[in-house]
Amino acid sequence: MKPKVDYSLYLVTDRLITKGRDLLQAVEEAIRGGVTLVQLREKSISSRDFYTLALEMKALTQKYRIPLIINDRLDIMLAVDADGLHVGEDDLPLATARRLLGPEKILGYSAGNITEALRGQEEGADYLGSGPVYLTGSKADAGEPIGLTGLQAIKESVKIPVVAIGGIDLARIPKVRETGVDGIAVISAILGQPDPKETSRALAEAWRGKANL
Amino acid sequence: MKPKVDYSLYLVTDRLITKGRDLLQAVEEAIRGGVTLVQLREKSISSRDFYTLALEMKALTQKYRIPLIINDRLDIMLAVDADGLHVGEDDLPLATARRLLGPEKILGYSAGNITEALRGQEEGADYLGSGPVYLTGSKADAGEPIGLTGLQAIKESVKIPVVAIGGIDLARIPKVRETGVDGIAVISAILGQPDPKETSRALAEAWRGKANL
Repeated sequence: MKPKVDYSLYLVTDRLITKGRDLLQAVEEAIRGGVTLVQLREKSISSRDFYTLALEMKALTQKYRIPLIINDRLDIMLAVDADGLHVGEDDLPLATARRLLGPEKILGYSAGNITEALRGQEEGADYLGSGPVYLTGSKADAGEPIGLTGLQAIKESVKIPVVAIGGIDLARIPKVRETGVDGIAVISAILGQPDPKETSRALAEAWRGKANL
Repeated sequence: MKPKVDYSLYLVTDRLITKGRDLLQAVEEAIRGGVTLVQLREKSISSRDFYTLALEMKALTQKYRIPLIINDRLDIMLAVDADGLHVGEDDLPLATARRLLGPEKILGYSAGNITEALRGQEEGADYLGSGPVYLTGSKADAGEPIGLTGLQAIKESVKIPVVAIGGIDLARIPKVRETGVDGIAVISAILGQPDPKETSRALAEAWRGKANL
């Protein structure tokens, strides 16, 4: 049985956005603040460097007992025995990834509309990353925003968890939460901030509806 | 049991060197000319594009019953069930690759000196790619040439097959062959030429010692 995953505050990494701070340190602070899941996302890096970083990230996420998901690279995921893999349209086909991963690993899929969402559910995804909800500068290839309406339509079309991504910040959390999604994925809203721990704590509290917004 | 591999004329691909011709077509001509093994090597390409190209390359090499080796990317190798993987120092560690591949797949390792060669043999490599023998422009990161002396020293230090790589052309084959290596790996000597089939035929004949040089 796969363990139940808390998707509420899903951190996607980007070394370019940590403003010179060590990525591992920034991620550790974010976890201490309330991040529930980490996706290691690296582009333009050698396989060896990705592997080395993934090993370090796995040690960190294990220490805090939260899942580590690897973006795109199934080889890195297998090599470090991470908890899961996230694929999008530029990556290995979802069904191929599921076949190679086996049934126990977490498999995420980027779905920007209902067609993709249904395909993701059909082909073995455990959760969907859906967006961009808002305009965002963190992912250059993210496409046109789907808005809260598009997000809600995706959530209502599938049974698997949906994580909203793209331009989500503290002020936007209540509206995003009203769509019924299972969590928010953030990059710059945490890693682009001076204090990842306090920022994560504020985001997590806002998600739980405890913040004064 | 792994099938016995003919390493004598090992083609490493480089889309940038085919001068606008279709890579698959150029490789097919090279196979028809006498190439005995193909390594698909792609950098700066999405996983999906690498996967798609690897599927096409696998269909081609299967048609001619020669092995297909994937450079660096174990995920692509597994996804298309290629015959093997080649790793170097920037890729997954050799022992990790062997563990994930299992014992049946061909695993190659880039070894530029005796220390690396012995490590490769120890950690599960089926063959070594050793060089650069001569100065070459095909691989910017290839390092200082090891020369015929360095190549011969590597060959004499291990029991597994050694394939010479780096700047090898028709005229240099007799000297390379005298070192006792099991084959030559070429990129531009085939893919950079106007007629890959005739060029491969000439290289294969030179390797067998039949050419008038």
